Amino acid sequence: MSLSPRPCSIARSLDVLGERWTLLVLRELTFGVHRFDGIARATGAPRDVLTKRLRTLEDSGLVLRRPYSERPPRSEYHLTGLGREASEVLLLLMAFGDRHLSEEPPVVWSHGGAENPEHDLEPVLLCRVCGRPAAEGMHAPTGPGAPGQ
Amino acid sequence: MSLSPRPCSIARSLDVLGERWTLLVLRELTFGVHRFDGIARATGAPRDVLTKRLRTLEDSGLVLRRPYSERPPRSEYHLTGLGREASEVLLLLMAFGDRHLSEEPPVVWSHGGAENPEHDLEPVLLCRVCGRPAAEGMHAPTGPGAPGQ
Repeated sequence: MSLSPRPCSIARSLDVLGERWTLLVLRELTFGVHRFDGIARATGAPRDVLTKRLRTLEDSGLVLRRPYSERPPRSEYHLTGLGREASEVLLLLMAFGDRHLSEEPPVVWSHGGAENPEHDLEPVLLCRVCGRPAAEGMHAPTGPGAPGQ
Repeated sequence: MSLSPRPCSIARSLDVLGERWTLLVLRELTFGVHRFDGIARATGAPRDVLTKRLRTLEDSGLVLRRPYSERPPRSEYHLTGLGREASEVLLLLMAFGDRHLSEEPPVVWSHGGAENPEHDLEPVLLCRVCGRPAAEGMHAPTGPGAPGQ
């Protein structure tokens, strides 16, 4: 094993996402709460921390800032396509919390649309290739970030 | 909207998982690195922080400690079933980092087994009910943690 930390896509994702308030900001944007005061209220994040996290999310391309008032200067925050993709992590954290840490799911999302009948969303992590659960049957990691490389 | 933070399964999951070193510890256990020194080396986590994170993971039921030496006292750390389930979050963070933050995937996992031919794992978040991408067509959140409740 290398003496230095591994090259790792998980660690790189955590550089962008790996902080509690960051993920709760993404939750609020997913809920359609786009203004600073609303996000601060619903997350409980300290305002100075929230300002920093929104800046990081903007710099990372996950969030787009749209001014809606000049005097006083005020902006709304919206998820980009990349931000929506990153927010999938929230759905998995929600599903885990619903199963193991909450008595009743605090939030249930509807899923479906034109050609897909309405139902309650049940996120599950599968393998795109075989359609089976991703975490079952994983083995033999290879590459520069794997053990023993 | 309530003036207090929302009841939220995401926030509850983050109470257990929402810290960088915690997730990197789970990564190492998934890789089969079970001893303190190996985990410290591969994550780069400060030893005192690592001790605390392992304790939290043990207290939360995600990790089981197994002594392997009495003098000096030494333990190995193993994922429980709950810990393996929580580790799915890592796979989604890895897939996101592979797509957007790494030139080449630093780690590729094999997937498959007896009745499932070998292939490279490609984690994807779908809806268990309809089999479509979970994040597409989400709408109308309800429940005590949803906006406007």
